[in-house]
Amino acid sequence: MSIAVIDGGTRPNGNTEILTNHVIQGINAERIYLRNYQIQPIIDMRHSPEGFQDRNDDYNSIIDRILSHDTLIFSTPIYWYSMSGIMKNFIDRWSQTLRDPNYPDFKKKMAAKKAYVIAVGGDNPSIKGLPMIQQFQYIFDFIGIEFAGYIIGNGNKPEEINQDIEALFKAEQLQKKL
Amino acid sequence: MSIAVIDGGTRPNGNTEILTNHVIQGINAERIYLRNYQIQPIIDMRHSPEGFQDRNDDYNSIIDRILSHDTLIFSTPIYWYSMSGIMKNFIDRWSQTLRDPNYPDFKKKMAAKKAYVIAVGGDNPSIKGLPMIQQFQYIFDFIGIEFAGYIIGNGNKPEEINQDIEALFKAEQLQKKL
Amino acid sequence: MSIAVIDGGTRPNGNTEILTNHVIQGINAERIYLRNYQIQPIIDMRHSPEGFQDRNDDYNSIIDRILSHDTLIFSTPIYWYSMSGIMKNFIDRWSQTLRDPNYPDFKKKMAAKKAYVIAVGGDNPSIKGLPMIQQFQYIFDFIGIEFAGYIIGNGNKPEEINQDIEALFKAEQLQKKL
Amino acid sequence: MSIAVIDGGTRPNGNTEILTNHVIQGINAERIYLRNYQIQPIIDMRHSPEGFQDRNDDYNSIIDRILSHDTLIFSTPIYWYSMSGIMKNFIDRWSQTLRDPNYPDFKKKMAAKKAYVIAVGGDNPSIKGLPMIQQFQYIFDFIGIEFAGYIIGNGNKPEEINQDIEALFKAEQLQKKL
Repeated sequence: MSIAVIDGGTRPNGNTEILTNHVIQGINAERIYLRNYQIQPIIDMRHSPEGFQDRNDDYNSIIDRILSHDTLIFSTPIYWYSMSGIMKNFIDRWSQTLRDPNYPDFKKKMAAKKAYVIAVGGDNPSIKGLPMIQQFQYIFDFIGIEFAGYIIGNGNKPEEINQDIEALFKAEQLQKKL
Repeated sequence: MSIAVIDGGTRPNGNTEILTNHVIQGINAERIYLRNYQIQPIIDMRHSPEGFQDRNDDYNSIIDRILSHDTLIFSTPIYWYSMSGIMKNFIDRWSQTLRDPNYPDFKKKMAAKKAYVIAVGGDNPSIKGLPMIQQFQYIFDFIGIEFAGYIIGNGNKPEEINQDIEALFKAEQLQKKL
Repeated sequence: MSIAVIDGGTRPNGNTEILTNHVIQGINAERIYLRNYQIQPIIDMRHSPEGFQDRNDDYNSIIDRILSHDTLIFSTPIYWYSMSGIMKNFIDRWSQTLRDPNYPDFKKKMAAKKAYVIAVGGDNPSIKGLPMIQQFQYIFDFIGIEFAGYIIGNGNKPEEINQDIEALFKAEQLQKKL
Repeated sequence: MSIAVIDGGTRPNGNTEILTNHVIQGINAERIYLRNYQIQPIIDMRHSPEGFQDRNDDYNSIIDRILSHDTLIFSTPIYWYSMSGIMKNFIDRWSQTLRDPNYPDFKKKMAAKKAYVIAVGGDNPSIKGLPMIQQFQYIFDFIGIEFAGYIIGNGNKPEEINQDIEALFKAEQLQKKL
């Protein structure tokens, strides 16, 4: 199994990153910190004669890296009850790749993968994070990826996730599966 | 009543913008097209000694403009079953403003407002857009804004929203209220 | 088109029934008021050697009646943010019919139908009724029925639904489709 | 702490009951198996001059029993993506008790309690059970009970829940809290 972690956190060693570390410790996984790259928001050009334009950013290089893996872990802090804006911009751009002649097999390749979601929030995430999980389900259904599981952790202050023993247990269980 | 429209669309005259036009035609409303501004993603500095840093972008100027209105309309295409990334980045930054000494009354001022959501999607939005509506409810609850209503429209191709007579009817009804 | 209305209301002329009347006025539809029948709760016997037992109630006669129609309208007041208990008991029993040798084609016949949901609630139903809509989606997906649309109305006091002009408009639109 | 378990299962030793046993083993808790009682569906008489009528069933005796406890565990199999019909009928009847002069403090007494939900389903319950959790949140918010946590387990065949080590771990953690 070959694993890429797509990390939507905005600060190093945030709670979500810590929880993700519990999952992949001792496992070979490619870490992609979206915060270290330029990813432009999508501009919807589906209906323009000229079509989507190259945004001259790092987005395609990240797509290239994830396509070679068979397991994707979407690791995001819960900001305002959903994934971080930088992760949302990354996913929004899939609409472009789906129409990009340079990626004729994008959907097919994505559909061969498994995905996990790891998310940490500070405001009752086991309830208020649920709409985000439903959205990931819709996202994965659309692109054809199997949604193989998720962990929602609770944490606000630095390293507080280490108090959430249920999330840590789930991380341990997921690690065994990977 | 004084109205600001926060427009998260990424192309001019998109379906969401058309539907929003039906709502505010003939009404004085300030239109803010997020796509025309630089809004950096948040960097979570809540727990850093230096605190949040000025991102040197257009974000604060938009906050200044919306704070003077008593009704906010969040108008966003549904991308991947949620608000657009540019709108998400805008909302993510509220976490910074909540701690910004230059905006000591941010929450209090926001809490005095009413909000509406107008959203258009192309993949069964009346079902698959529901988690996004729940998220807006959580967002508005947190900041204290009254969630006064929403319109979900159906549209994919340019101007297709004009076929959605139920959405147009709701737009008309909302217009009467504003 | 041949239509059955499965009515989960518990009082005559309730708001949900009124809204449903707007939909089917002038249309030939079989009305089934669940409150007029004995429908026992399911007893899960999937894993017992003797299997499900006949409950000696009116349930099967209702199944017989709905199977001959190609459009089903589930009409239920929103009680405690979900369908009424009598409608839930009716749907729970489908698990029995799915294993009943007297109904070998139950799933296949159900899967050939279209379904609509009409629901009225009094506590912010356009938000708090959404989980119920998602559940109907899962229910219909499982059994294979196409979920063709829904109307959520707002009403608490007798006949209050007649003030909800958006719900009435949707009822009118649905009527044209039927 | 004084605990009542409200059990909505329909067969003895079902997966939900087993999971609940893990939570309360060695703890003093009153078990109420709804399947052993007659609980009539509500008949909505809020707007009738005569008001709600006594249904001459076991419902009030169960209310009497739960009111004396400070922690309620709602234990239900997930049938058709929601609580069982017998549990729904039990909760529907709260609308009657809220207006029953014999229970003038019903809401106040309920609002002093904590609630947990334990639910087991067989069709991807960690995703498809989420709308039910949101409904319990709305239910508890309305009545004022604190929603202190939930466990969703996965199980279909008899005793299959014993394979769900994450649910068992959560059960163990909950046991420590009780």
